[in-house]
Amino acid sequence: MSEQIYVGVDLGGTAIKVGICNEQGKLLHTYEGPTEVEKGVDTVIDNIERYVRQIVEESPFNWDQLAGVGAGVAGFTNVQEGIIILAPNVGFRDVPIRAILEERLGKPVKIDNDANVAALGEVWGGAGKGVDHCVCYTLGTGVGGGIIIGGKIYQGFSGLAGELGHMSVVPDLEAIQCGCGKMGCLETVSSATGIIRMAKDAVERGDRTSLATVENIMAKDVFDAAKQGDEAALRIVNRAAFYLGKSLAAVSTVLNPERYIIGGGVSKAGEILFQEVRAVFAKFTPEPLQEKVEIVPAILGNDAGMVGAAGLFLRS
Amino acid sequence: MSEQIYVGVDLGGTAIKVGICNEQGKLLHTYEGPTEVEKGVDTVIDNIERYVRQIVEESPFNWDQLAGVGAGVAGFTNVQEGIIILAPNVGFRDVPIRAILEERLGKPVKIDNDANVAALGEVWGGAGKGVDHCVCYTLGTGVGGGIIIGGKIYQGFSGLAGELGHMSVVPDLEAIQCGCGKMGCLETVSSATGIIRMAKDAVERGDRTSLATVENIMAKDVFDAAKQGDEAALRIVNRAAFYLGKSLAAVSTVLNPERYIIGGGVSKAGEILFQEVRAVFAKFTPEPLQEKVEIVPAILGNDAGMVGAAGLFLRS
Repeated sequence: MSEQIYVGVDLGGTAIKVGICNEQGKLLHTYEGPTEVEKGVDTVIDNIERYVRQIVEESPFNWDQLAGVGAGVAGFTNVQEGIIILAPNVGFRDVPIRAILEERLGKPVKIDNDANVAALGEVWGGAGKGVDHCVCYTLGTGVGGGIIIGGKIYQGFSGLAGELGHMSVVPDLEAIQCGCGKMGCLETVSSATGIIRMAKDAVERGDRTSLATVENIMAKDVFDAAKQGDEAALRIVNRAAFYLGKSLAAVSTVLNPERYIIGGGVSKAGEILFQEVRAVFAKFTPEPLQEKVEIVPAILGNDAGMVGAAGLFLRS
Repeated sequence: MSEQIYVGVDLGGTAIKVGICNEQGKLLHTYEGPTEVEKGVDTVIDNIERYVRQIVEESPFNWDQLAGVGAGVAGFTNVQEGIIILAPNVGFRDVPIRAILEERLGKPVKIDNDANVAALGEVWGGAGKGVDHCVCYTLGTGVGGGIIIGGKIYQGFSGLAGELGHMSVVPDLEAIQCGCGKMGCLETVSSATGIIRMAKDAVERGDRTSLATVENIMAKDVFDAAKQGDEAALRIVNRAAFYLGKSLAAVSTVLNPERYIIGGGVSKAGEILFQEVRAVFAKFTPEPLQEKVEIVPAILGNDAGMVGAAGLFLRS
């Protein structure tokens, strides 16, 4: 019984999720505790250490079996140096998290950003199992992306490959500015934030829509209204799907991947979104680049972060 | 003196160019003969064999030093099987060129499409020397693309990665149909064909332009007129550059390459094109993805095909 295990850490603004994975990418045990961002960087790091030790103690495995700890975080990371450059949600700036955790835990540590880690999780143990050329989108507050080539995260020249939310896809006349400073990014229309903004605009414009009676519009409200046949809501959903589909078509001309995996809160909309994305992809992608290509929902949900973070060890 | 050499074959519709390269990617000798497409597939293959034998004979090297023959062709190729699926310019359809040439020459043979081969040539011995993450555009009759990762051609799932001419970048309202059947492909605006079409449209529309007096407009005429300050011509050049720049911005969010190399006849326009491409790229690419990224002209010109084809051996 000297099986090796890996702990994956999903470092979020509210909670830190830790999970034990075996070498096959199966999530065996999970634990979740508060991040306590308000208490500062040191407390957050203390908490990571504590939760990692705790989950191994409470498991049937012993500390010696722990071969490595991977961590994913929303923000800019320097993977090579193991530094979290900027993670606003957890209040980290230039934190050499790898060195700190390796020192404290006495185990090898690896980090990456949350979208890359989620992509790796889906390819390792989710909707991309066994697929060599995979591109993942995470549609949440923003739009994250991860490129998996040969089962590994593709980092690009400076570690920024797969920033798919910042592909400028909306034509100038209709574009608004993105948080990144540029115009027309995919994130401005296909994220939860983008969908909510478009819904509020519709209500303010006086469009006839059931959303006008909703107090605090969430992306889910827009999808629910669209499913009920609300035309304004349907236009918004189709717009989000249109630019997402166009972005997939663009990615295919570059990378010719085999599978697209769409995850994150917005992807929960289901077929009303996926049908339109597939239709737009088919419309704008040359036939040979469509052959055998699948566009599927992510299946690991909130576990993708933990699984992928553990996977940083076995898949890089 | 048992240095190994490689022959690169650039199989075009009019001429077959063959070149001897050493292991460092230096082009040592070249020979060019007619393709003779009109005489049929067998004659074309005879010619390839003849020119390869001839150039080695006429060189200071002997046949035993020839370690491999690479060939690039405009069209769809199955790299793994060594088959030219469809190459309209040379009249090839489903020709197992690798097996045929290996049999005839008694040497290992590799093939790929012309844009990939040109990209490899530029990275091996041209404008991308020593650059690990490189994306090349060839702006000719169409727009070809090649993705170089780690010094090698990236093929993608089904060998179609880097079909950059078919990224749909022109918004629906202004888009025209591409030869591939889809709307708004980069190729419809940033190829020589696209530029000539826009120029003819301008003349037909009655725009005030010196191009109205040109008999048979070529892309070069449009660039020359633009350099002279012709406003209609300048609008056309800027439009070609705008969508090319937007496509580069999109590629950067996917791949985060270090360098873009732009070659082909249209790239000869020089700074009037490159300045605008760089400006558009800067406008639509998030700052971190712009850092240290260069957009440069190809330098091998017509030799890229031969060098890259020879490189199929040493770089794959």
